[in-house]
Amino acid sequence: MVFKNGEEARAAIRLEKWTGPTPGLAYGYTQANLVVLPAKYALDFLIFCQRNPKPCPILDICEPGKFTPILTAPMADIRTDIPKYRVYRDGILVEEVNNILNLWSEDLVSFLLGCSFTFEKALSDAGIGIRHIEEDRNVPMYITNIETIPAGIFKGPMVVSMRPIPKHLVEQTIAITARFPRVHGAPIHVGDPEKLGIRDLSKPDFGESVTLKEGEVPVFWACGVTPQAVIMHVKPEFVITHAPGCMFITDIKDDDLEL
Amino acid sequence: MVFKNGEEARAAIRLEKWTGPTPGLAYGYTQANLVVLPAKYALDFLIFCQRNPKPCPILDICEPGKFTPILTAPMADIRTDIPKYRVYRDGILVEEVNNILNLWSEDLVSFLLGCSFTFEKALSDAGIGIRHIEEDRNVPMYITNIETIPAGIFKGPMVVSMRPIPKHLVEQTIAITARFPRVHGAPIHVGDPEKLGIRDLSKPDFGESVTLKEGEVPVFWACGVTPQAVIMHVKPEFVITHAPGCMFITDIKDDDLEL
Repeated sequence: MVFKNGEEARAAIRLEKWTGPTPGLAYGYTQANLVVLPAKYALDFLIFCQRNPKPCPILDICEPGKFTPILTAPMADIRTDIPKYRVYRDGILVEEVNNILNLWSEDLVSFLLGCSFTFEKALSDAGIGIRHIEEDRNVPMYITNIETIPAGIFKGPMVVSMRPIPKHLVEQTIAITARFPRVHGAPIHVGDPEKLGIRDLSKPDFGESVTLKEGEVPVFWACGVTPQAVIMHVKPEFVITHAPGCMFITDIKDDDLEL
Repeated sequence: MVFKNGEEARAAIRLEKWTGPTPGLAYGYTQANLVVLPAKYALDFLIFCQRNPKPCPILDICEPGKFTPILTAPMADIRTDIPKYRVYRDGILVEEVNNILNLWSEDLVSFLLGCSFTFEKALSDAGIGIRHIEEDRNVPMYITNIETIPAGIFKGPMVVSMRPIPKHLVEQTIAITARFPRVHGAPIHVGDPEKLGIRDLSKPDFGESVTLKEGEVPVFWACGVTPQAVIMHVKPEFVITHAPGCMFITDIKDDDLEL
């Protein structure tokens, strides 16, 4: 299925006419990660994101009990407009659901975080291929030796995503993604996985490995899995996230996030 | 007095060897506004700032009870390193003090917000005069008809500062300040005070009026007084801020806040 814009895609998702992955569903509209937390964790988490904007770029926040992302999709409902949600209790995944209406409470705070789909579109538009899309896999992600800046109870290593880029396109790749600071921005490292404490590129901690061809270098970006990993480390009694690949589609256009 | 850097200036301020205004005290080092709030207001206030980044650009946050601004001045103590603080109870200014050690509690959350001194330095460096500095006055500030985006209990009109700029320098002024998004960024309006609901430039709501000369246009920027005005409207039982002109001097250089 393909929709004209974020609003149309969300309408179909709300009616559960679409319950699968969202990439390509409303081309050019910004997709976002969802994290829903009990209010007592929200201040620490928000400070964590403010201190670590590269892995945790906040696009929108709903106050306790509120479910309208007023900056990015003022007609949307965070409880119904994502195809698939994951529910965690005490850090353990307990169920996947198509809406969270029955799980909702006045105590919940919702965060929408930017995602690398936005800069991948910009790279594709510039003719720079995205290997995991070409190979129809999930992007490879690795836990690094870079510590995030802690905030309250939240701390842990940064997770990065990796995309192989031909040597002669690395500078252009850096320049393009640097223009999207609200969706991870410029790479945090180019070239040497060991500098990040990554021993074997073929064994990612999350996602799937992709082919690194002759003449290509691995390029690493701060990854939106970082905040999820940091939260799960704390094992809060209750957390809701989107299911992998099933994102929230906003009314913002990817191009509008460019500087 | 003039100091080599933020650390030296703060050391003198901590010992109360300097208890006055900070502009020019450590040239080139970023100065910041301070807001200290009870924890129960902190999440709403932080969401308010995230939704209104032009008037409320957050540079650093200390978690409840913490007094070290770890991003901007990791050796500093927010309780002693500002020359003069203002203490408000139920929205009323009750005292001015040189440190807040006796007022401190585990429940307090501190926010450092960017201030226009940073872009004024950049304008001066480019040879663009700052009228209120030339006339040795406080910058004129006006309450506008632009509503901020509310968050929780916080809402209210945006406050702007105004600087007269010669017509032929307006474009350059916009370009320079646009490169400082973390300290108010580009102007929000150029030319017509009435568009902002300002009836009389000679009667600012805060600060002092300055001369608008022939061939100059009034240029308006989102102002860091906005968050203070919004907080005072709520009349929290307890708030601490810096005293006007007596800012927190960070270890960051103004030039480093440029894009």
